[in-house]
Amino acid sequence: MRGGNARADHETRVHESDHHSLKLWLRLLTCSSLIERKLRDKLRRSFDITLPRFDFLAQLERSPNGLTMGQLSERMMVSGGNISGIAAQLVNEGLVSRSPLPNNRRTFLVTLTRKGRKKFRMIANAHEAWIVEILGQIKKDDVRQLMELLNKVKTQV
Amino acid sequence: MRGGNARADHETRVHESDHHSLKLWLRLLTCSSLIERKLRDKLRRSFDITLPRFDFLAQLERSPNGLTMGQLSERMMVSGGNISGIAAQLVNEGLVSRSPLPNNRRTFLVTLTRKGRKKFRMIANAHEAWIVEILGQIKKDDVRQLMELLNKVKTQV
Repeated sequence: MRGGNARADHETRVHESDHHSLKLWLRLLTCSSLIERKLRDKLRRSFDITLPRFDFLAQLERSPNGLTMGQLSERMMVSGGNISGIAAQLVNEGLVSRSPLPNNRRTFLVTLTRKGRKKFRMIANAHEAWIVEILGQIKKDDVRQLMELLNKVKTQV
Repeated sequence: MRGGNARADHETRVHESDHHSLKLWLRLLTCSSLIERKLRDKLRRSFDITLPRFDFLAQLERSPNGLTMGQLSERMMVSGGNISGIAAQLVNEGLVSRSPLPNNRRTFLVTLTRKGRKKFRMIANAHEAWIVEILGQIKKDDVRQLMELLNKVKTQV
């Protein structure tokens, strides 16, 4: 039987002599990949929804006045092409609506529909519970320190 | 002008009332997405190679005796289908070779070719330099602490 740390992952390729920045990056990537994979599986099994589509709804829920495709692309940290595909699917399912801005017909504003908001709330509750299940055992003090240190990383990058 | 922290990202959707585990997850995801995006752009521009293909070569370089498709899938933390596609492309370019195991003709062992190893070394040097450029300003003590705390996260997950 192998423990949590004995599994192969991005860090398996680290050489002892690698720069500590590279080691840090591969550990960071491993942590986020592990969590992302868990969430992806749970979202698919429980709600038949992909992680990017859930993210898309989450960003819209935060902005009741809607977001342009460009704003969604920035917030989801992916390219505009990806965003258009997700938007089209969600429009088809009646979860979001898309309409041109009155003063700029070439820019589209996306908003959650009532159905989309209801569906998001349901999934978001489960999503938050899963994350608490995954990360909730970490001591509050460690969480606080991690938040500070990761903020330094974010500012640096 | 907006500073590094003023840009919209995964954390833009955080509500003050969200659980601290969710806040931690979105900060972790933002950091890894920021770095991943930088690396992705640089790899594409400088070497016309995608991040998953570079990861694939990196895992093979670490295992001179080769890896099975299953091992590659575990180490790269992605599904087997993704791995097969990448392997096929890299075989076509002569960077890796793929042959059935002698004792199990249904399992394929993948190894770096001499050309693949040479190409990997070249890209890996640039890749490490970029990471040092991105993360090298973080104080050694903060890096050490982050490594420890992220190890707790990894063990927890």
